[in-house]
Amino acid sequence: MIKKDTRFLIVGLGLIGGSYAMGLKRNGFHVDAIDINQLSIDYAKEHDIIDEGSTFAIELIQNADFIISGLYPNMTVEWYATYQKYMKPHAFLTDVSGVKRNIVERIQSILREDLEFCASHPMAGKEVSGVKYADDAIFHIANFIITPTAKNTQTAIATLKEFASILGFTNISILTPEEHDEMVGFVSQLTHVIAVSLMNTNDNTHLVEYTGDSFRDLTRIAKINENLWSELFFLNKDNLIREIDDFVKEINHLKTKLEQDDVEGLKELFIQSTIRRKRFDR
Amino acid sequence: MIKKDTRFLIVGLGLIGGSYAMGLKRNGFHVDAIDINQLSIDYAKEHDIIDEGSTFAIELIQNADFIISGLYPNMTVEWYATYQKYMKPHAFLTDVSGVKRNIVERIQSILREDLEFCASHPMAGKEVSGVKYADDAIFHIANFIITPTAKNTQTAIATLKEFASILGFTNISILTPEEHDEMVGFVSQLTHVIAVSLMNTNDNTHLVEYTGDSFRDLTRIAKINENLWSELFFLNKDNLIREIDDFVKEINHLKTKLEQDDVEGLKELFIQSTIRRKRFDR
Repeated sequence: MIKKDTRFLIVGLGLIGGSYAMGLKRNGFHVDAIDINQLSIDYAKEHDIIDEGSTFAIELIQNADFIISGLYPNMTVEWYATYQKYMKPHAFLTDVSGVKRNIVERIQSILREDLEFCASHPMAGKEVSGVKYADDAIFHIANFIITPTAKNTQTAIATLKEFASILGFTNISILTPEEHDEMVGFVSQLTHVIAVSLMNTNDNTHLVEYTGDSFRDLTRIAKINENLWSELFFLNKDNLIREIDDFVKEINHLKTKLEQDDVEGLKELFIQSTIRRKRFDR
Repeated sequence: MIKKDTRFLIVGLGLIGGSYAMGLKRNGFHVDAIDINQLSIDYAKEHDIIDEGSTFAIELIQNADFIISGLYPNMTVEWYATYQKYMKPHAFLTDVSGVKRNIVERIQSILREDLEFCASHPMAGKEVSGVKYADDAIFHIANFIITPTAKNTQTAIATLKEFASILGFTNISILTPEEHDEMVGFVSQLTHVIAVSLMNTNDNTHLVEYTGDSFRDLTRIAKINENLWSELFFLNKDNLIREIDDFVKEINHLKTKLEQDDVEGLKELFIQSTIRRKRFDR
């Protein structure tokens, strides 16, 4: 159970870290933050998103019961490796990374015996970044995925479930790191590959005045943070390459129907996609 | 100039035909309609979307000054070929087809000398069909494309511009049928190919609980009317196959960056797509 006097520490006060802080504060918890940018700390304090913050303060780490890294995946590993020595005995740790296999294994293999790291992934976001855009409402229609391993306790899983409930996530699920990475390879990473590639197919910016909602919807996520997403892609390279191959195979299958003037075959593809897509309606 | 006593006839009272009727009536014009489905006619009359309507009435054709075919492309050609004999001398004709080259040429080559057909394409729609969903507000953020040929007069182009203004279209453009079909091949048809193929890539419906907004946005148009869209695709087959090939080449280019562990190369693709997509922001 998450006690009312639990002291949270957010490491990396970006969009997700900031939104977590906002939601936790709204629920009456004490929230501290560490970020390399003093402006982010100042903004968050001024807007009552955090209680205390600093670009670096050992005391904030020492006092924390529940630490959330809002840093990029590889940086999360490094940060926990470097600063675990200052952590309170039995502190609870999690992250927000969009890939899990590699990250979870690396953290759990180097962590102090008394600390527990149980990974989680809030499937929420915006096309903008930084604490200035923090908004805990983004969690209210989002999925929260917990990815425990054999090294995690049932208590840790229960704690993360409660944490997600407090923040108002709609769905809370449990997946293995392997299942998680396969799922995001399709649902999230492949969609970004498609949007980016469509935007990069020839230079079609002269067509801007003719584009409608469907083109804009399809390419919205082509505005992408290149540092974060290149890291996410390479950490899930095997899954993503397989998903790209499957998708290209499917698109070439449709092309074959066109080339062969197979009207009925093309209609069948449309009927199948329509039936499947209906199951995704909210 | 479109006179206040112009009598409009909508042939095919679907989503677009119905929305046209609604907008024209709202602006005080007389609007009749022909549709094969009596229920559509009844609905439109009850809801004051049209003045008169029928499943078939020669008088409605004889009385019309301005005829708009809201039928599918090939059916539009057939309907004009069959019923032009009943039309008032110097009646003005247009359509709503999403492809132009083949359709415009076929209609203009068989049309009576005194009639003028100037093609146009309202780039608006919904994922539902039928007059029940008619709503002329769909035009207010949409593009209206006029595709005249050497057989068209300046008066016809001016008439269509005025027509689009009356209906509240945001942008009105003039393209050749060839330019139009190349443009929709990329902006509209390729995006539908992508959405359909993504939806058909393996059976991923078990992932529904994990999908977020980006996946839903990308696949929204995978719910597709198979009869209309198969016709549109085959009428623009050459352009569409070329666009598919270009897109697949681009997506494989991104895959190569992954396979070669080319972090900087991948980032460059993300930066390019981000810059380009920003130009498409409203």
